[in-house]
Amino acid sequence: MSRRYAILAPHRFESDAKTAHGVIRYGNDAVVAVIDPALAGKRVREVLPFLNSDAPIVASFAEALEFSPTALLIGTAPKGGGLPPDWRADVLAAIAAKLEIVSGLHDMLNADREFRMASRAAGTTIWDVREPPEVPLFAGDVYALGAPIVLTVGSDCAVGKMTVSLELVRAAQSSGRNARFVPTGQTGIMIAGWGISVDRVIIDFAPGAAEQLVLYAAHHGADLIVVEGQGALNHPAYAPVTLALMTGCAPDALVLVCDPRLTAIESYPTPALGYAESIEIHERLLATIKPAKVAGIALRTHGLSEDEARAEIALAKRETGLPADDIVRFGAQRFYSEIAPLIVKSRPLEAVRHA
Amino acid sequence: MSRRYAILAPHRFESDAKTAHGVIRYGNDAVVAVIDPALAGKRVREVLPFLNSDAPIVASFAEALEFSPTALLIGTAPKGGGLPPDWRADVLAAIAAKLEIVSGLHDMLNADREFRMASRAAGTTIWDVREPPEVPLFAGDVYALGAPIVLTVGSDCAVGKMTVSLELVRAAQSSGRNARFVPTGQTGIMIAGWGISVDRVIIDFAPGAAEQLVLYAAHHGADLIVVEGQGALNHPAYAPVTLALMTGCAPDALVLVCDPRLTAIESYPTPALGYAESIEIHERLLATIKPAKVAGIALRTHGLSEDEARAEIALAKRETGLPADDIVRFGAQRFYSEIAPLIVKSRPLEAVRHA
Repeated sequence: MSRRYAILAPHRFESDAKTAHGVIRYGNDAVVAVIDPALAGKRVREVLPFLNSDAPIVASFAEALEFSPTALLIGTAPKGGGLPPDWRADVLAAIAAKLEIVSGLHDMLNADREFRMASRAAGTTIWDVREPPEVPLFAGDVYALGAPIVLTVGSDCAVGKMTVSLELVRAAQSSGRNARFVPTGQTGIMIAGWGISVDRVIIDFAPGAAEQLVLYAAHHGADLIVVEGQGALNHPAYAPVTLALMTGCAPDALVLVCDPRLTAIESYPTPALGYAESIEIHERLLATIKPAKVAGIALRTHGLSEDEARAEIALAKRETGLPADDIVRFGAQRFYSEIAPLIVKSRPLEAVRHA
Repeated sequence: MSRRYAILAPHRFESDAKTAHGVIRYGNDAVVAVIDPALAGKRVREVLPFLNSDAPIVASFAEALEFSPTALLIGTAPKGGGLPPDWRADVLAAIAAKLEIVSGLHDMLNADREFRMASRAAGTTIWDVREPPEVPLFAGDVYALGAPIVLTVGSDCAVGKMTVSLELVRAAQSSGRNARFVPTGQTGIMIAGWGISVDRVIIDFAPGAAEQLVLYAAHHGADLIVVEGQGALNHPAYAPVTLALMTGCAPDALVLVCDPRLTAIESYPTPALGYAESIEIHERLLATIKPAKVAGIALRTHGLSEDEARAEIALAKRETGLPADDIVRFGAQRFYSEIAPLIVKSRPLEAVRHA
């Protein structure tokens, strides 16, 4: 059942509410109102045209309630990790009105005694999306799926893997496929309304979490599954998350997402991989478990002029022989059409049994 | 400060107490008594000669107390994950006697209200070794260490990475080096008396846990650090743990541990890697972060005749050009001498900064 969201973002909606923007732009769930007294009376479109939404902005939770929301989304993740104290009253009012509370805050709202008791009394739930559920070990059930599985991988964190995944799903849907986005991180989860923050799972169970997500998408009828990637395979701190998705999702094809201006992994001395080297290493490792090829390269050319961007795209094509584009800047449909024939089911390797 | 262990293993010491055997054979801490009424009156050596220990076996905790233990080790991990109900009285008696309780059980003794309250009242502690402490993110401090770092990697779980690591440390110590074993799993932790069960850490923090362990060993004066590996790099479920150790420990050299009879990863269809392929993949991936070469191959020839074992060792040498041996079966000293010159400090890659 889909949600009807009121988004709580007082005095922050315009400048500091990336999660809210993502949910409005890409979300499966409806956004019926945004709460921000500084912008009350306007529509979202008047403040942020690119979000393409006519949702009303209101001054208070009481006004938002007139639009019959079923859930309250905490729309920003302020520094410090907790809920700003002056937001508590609205959260409690939403619980009393039997709304589900959806939070991506670092501090778990379920660990707050007042919120927990209030939600029990009201018979509603608080979903802390960063808190992973219990998941089984990886079992290999994902190997039996018929729908092709695509995983985005990238040159670093925060290069656009989630956005590329979402744009590819939209392009595939425009082409008539029942494509489904598989969220693996906080913002993706809020956009899709389901998912697991894989980076918060106990490492032994992380491939199992990835498998469960893909199985969920398949069991809901997807005929193309696009998984939001995390980290980078040569990231000193986050490479295990990348690899957990590479083994646990059992992808049939990869899409490499790169920011060409990156020279190093953020906060570490480690050089960012070049296109050819990155393709080689991802494919080499998966060739030992379940083979998957890189089907195309999605570039993040934000910060480059249009000429520079087109030159970089041409370079990526020339260096790799693969489709390449900035699908946020230049549209996803052509890139999707180019990579679609390269997304074909692969089978896991099987050991030769000796008699 | 080192412990004096009483090991609790009633009716299981001989047949079902691998952890106890490991602690007696390799442990840094003394074992002053074993509690097992079925074997009471004997010495460990009379029951299990290979453990090379004269510790007395006694019928009850009260008798064990006469040998002035400072800690009670739960010596087995019975099926079901919990403490057998008839062991509770001994655990409570040990707490009352102000002994530290050390447990590798799946169920945390600290989560047992009676044990927790008793240990608080007695002013002693319960160490659930499977429960990891909070650790920071990987920071790269390990890159500054002067002592060479060796990581064991392998063709699967349970092929002998811990034992090979321990034997290498002993051989290095015999050669006059202040070598130190770094434990990353339950049995290794009980043997060393410290460590983190890395497979139980939240995946984002697993490389940070590995780094903290190596830093601890270095800060305690080690001039050679040998890290117990986990899993396998092509293991569908546990590869992320392997990679977390590969990035987080920042090894200068690897030792490849293989069971040559393995054709597949246990419980999965995935083929086990051959010697050359395994070396290539580990080295290729680390070449993107901090280069490390495989210095030698430690074979587990258990189950092969001596002739078959020597033939397999010769094959591994021929195929790779590296030192190879079964160091548990044929001794570790020669292998250690052969690989020692190949263990040289490497530096992490650094990105070229553009102006």
